[in-house]
Amino acid sequence: MAITGGTLVTISAKMEIIEDSLVGIKDGLIVAVGRNSDQEYAALKTKDTIDASGCIVMPGLVNTHTHLPMVCFRGMADDLPLMEWLTGHIFPAEARFVNKKMVYDGATLAMAEMILSGTTTFCDGYFFEDAIAEALSAAGMRAIVSQGFADFITPDKPKLEKRMAVAERFVTRWQSYAPMITPAYFCHSPYTCSPATLVNIKEAAREAGILYLMHLLENKDEIDTILNRYGKKPVRHLLDLGVLDEQTVAVHCNWLTKEDMAVFADLGVRVSHNPESSMKLAAGVAPVPEMLKHGIKVGLGTDGSASNNDLDMFREMDTAAKIHKVTSLDPTVMSAETVLKMATTGGAKVLGMEKFIGSIETGKQADIILVDMNQPHLTPLYNCYSQLVYAARGADVKTSIINGKIVMKDRQLRTIDLPTAMENVRVVAADIINQKLC
Amino acid sequence: MAITGGTLVTISAKMEIIEDSLVGIKDGLIVAVGRNSDQEYAALKTKDTIDASGCIVMPGLVNTHTHLPMVCFRGMADDLPLMEWLTGHIFPAEARFVNKKMVYDGATLAMAEMILSGTTTFCDGYFFEDAIAEALSAAGMRAIVSQGFADFITPDKPKLEKRMAVAERFVTRWQSYAPMITPAYFCHSPYTCSPATLVNIKEAAREAGILYLMHLLENKDEIDTILNRYGKKPVRHLLDLGVLDEQTVAVHCNWLTKEDMAVFADLGVRVSHNPESSMKLAAGVAPVPEMLKHGIKVGLGTDGSASNNDLDMFREMDTAAKIHKVTSLDPTVMSAETVLKMATTGGAKVLGMEKFIGSIETGKQADIILVDMNQPHLTPLYNCYSQLVYAARGADVKTSIINGKIVMKDRQLRTIDLPTAMENVRVVAADIINQKLC
Repeated sequence: MAITGGTLVTISAKMEIIEDSLVGIKDGLIVAVGRNSDQEYAALKTKDTIDASGCIVMPGLVNTHTHLPMVCFRGMADDLPLMEWLTGHIFPAEARFVNKKMVYDGATLAMAEMILSGTTTFCDGYFFEDAIAEALSAAGMRAIVSQGFADFITPDKPKLEKRMAVAERFVTRWQSYAPMITPAYFCHSPYTCSPATLVNIKEAAREAGILYLMHLLENKDEIDTILNRYGKKPVRHLLDLGVLDEQTVAVHCNWLTKEDMAVFADLGVRVSHNPESSMKLAAGVAPVPEMLKHGIKVGLGTDGSASNNDLDMFREMDTAAKIHKVTSLDPTVMSAETVLKMATTGGAKVLGMEKFIGSIETGKQADIILVDMNQPHLTPLYNCYSQLVYAARGADVKTSIINGKIVMKDRQLRTIDLPTAMENVRVVAADIINQKLC
Repeated sequence: MAITGGTLVTISAKMEIIEDSLVGIKDGLIVAVGRNSDQEYAALKTKDTIDASGCIVMPGLVNTHTHLPMVCFRGMADDLPLMEWLTGHIFPAEARFVNKKMVYDGATLAMAEMILSGTTTFCDGYFFEDAIAEALSAAGMRAIVSQGFADFITPDKPKLEKRMAVAERFVTRWQSYAPMITPAYFCHSPYTCSPATLVNIKEAAREAGILYLMHLLENKDEIDTILNRYGKKPVRHLLDLGVLDEQTVAVHCNWLTKEDMAVFADLGVRVSHNPESSMKLAAGVAPVPEMLKHGIKVGLGTDGSASNNDLDMFREMDTAAKIHKVTSLDPTVMSAETVLKMATTGGAKVLGMEKFIGSIETGKQADIILVDMNQPHLTPLYNCYSQLVYAARGADVKTSIINGKIVMKDRQLRTIDLPTAMENVRVVAADIINQKLC
């Protein structure tokens, strides 16, 4: 298969942009990157060739943090104080409505939304993660699926003593599907997980050779909570427990200090940045420009739909570029190019998948999106990076290819039955409305 | 004509929401608001009835500040220090490329983008404003068109001494078209207009009974500039000149103090809030929650496409809700409902048009949009306000009616030839690229 005639934004190390380009795909891999006029690639043009005229051809976006099934709670309760939102709405709804079917149905709808807005790879953390992996397999997306841990009773693991065995079975079941489905462990946070939990799970993650994720420093309160409990600040606490390394992804990091950044840079700890969720929850603004200066690997994420309230990575890129400019009063930080890298190669690096995805180069897996630039809000076109970050939106993605397979063509999904996916989530929502939880 | 079967979000004083609604329209006015099942409205249902099933029916959005022709400069130069952006790119491009045709063509494309993203009324300020009014008339949108003033040579007024006569002719020409086309005066800012200019233009605006607009306190530097020049801060300077009253709209106000707010509240000065532009330019965050507490009328705006870089008021609403939450670390400020009012009735009040537009009530002019809620990223639907602000986007607007006329149906524009509008702006851009100004 070939994709011809578009403006190719490679996000390779050289950041090449190729006009009237050709991308050849075979067995799920990118086998050719060049010009449409190059004769050597003529054989790649078959009846399946996709005409990308008027489109930017670019790597699919990588969403480094989300909780897919929370689409079921999108807009259920907003503009509330954090604790009222959590304890009055989200936790009761999760306790009552989260089950394997809800997780599968929510994840399926969320994946429809993600494919329709240009995301090809994501990293999820929730309960019943087996069901997410099953939905993922059906939808043909690529993901890290993280089994969640916390020292309270979660909807899927009533017996704490059995959870490690469950988690190991989960890893064993899915590990061979990498790099399409890659299992991981997600410790909810330093304030919901005891030192023993944090250490034990990290040890298990190391043994399995998988990623270890954690919400960290989302809110300022967390500093006092951990200081009161352990006599040290969160990053020092985690450092002393020995759970920070290159396979650790810290999500949010809104209150990371320069000292913390030095630790992260030294140990190779990676960060998932979720600006829209942290704005909406009034949690804080992560010091991302400083993190990048420290050489920390940072990827972009949307967080779940209950706190954003969408999964559109184009919107997230726009916000990521703007929020840091205004908080630093410096319009030169977080350029469009920087943000676009963060949402592609940056995310791939954070998830340890940079060998497979994040850019359009021969030998990488074919995760490619076509963005239709022939639209009023994308006219004129001076600079691809600027246009993609500041003016394009998820709805401009025309076609999406994951692992060499077309999952959306001309805005039509090929792997998900959209009316059914929407209806299934509406059924969950009707129950929530009946129970007066929104 | 009638619009039937949708969920009607009125934005009336009572903020009624009517399921399976009916809106009747006759001679450009809303003549009925009720339920689809009400027998008294049966006669309104003709062959022109629009089926709004699955849609939210709501007032068109009001964009209180923009510079339409700047679509020609969209993405031309981004992520630069403010002065380099202005003096190295924007001003040279304006000096060389702004002419009547560029203004007409740019405005036409900008209006296409606005209609496609749910805006029905806007307030523009630029050069050759006559051409904007002509383009507006052809497109069937509603607007305040503001003739710009500054004490430097602008592209349309090489002879400063004649500008007042030109401005008066502009007002005379268009004043009878209100409330579809309403002329106004726009003094660029206190730092580009001398006290004499500020006072003279205000006097002329008072005589003509028209709005007087001004960029104010966009950047922090402005405080020192005015303090050094006049020995007082900007708002005190304007207060002493006597140019602040209920017909004055101050745009941006990122550095408005509590003392300034008391002055604004006392005199009825109105504010246009443009969060995305001020974030991108690293200009600052306007203290809007405090302004609202002071009872100041605040509307939402996108600013021009060179500093945003789109004209999508849905995206602007989302950002407006989120930016104030995170800067105040309070998730309860700027609720979705507050922001939606700001983008509709709030904007109408700022522009002095609340008698005509801003809500769906009998007697008001029929500026109505239909938002297609039957989409994955808008599923499920618990709360209309939340969904419209945090999850919907311009591309979800299906149909748009202005002054009782359908200007877009099922995403197809009826008053603008889109391919031609895009091509005309591409021609301008090609010139700019040739001159190496981007």
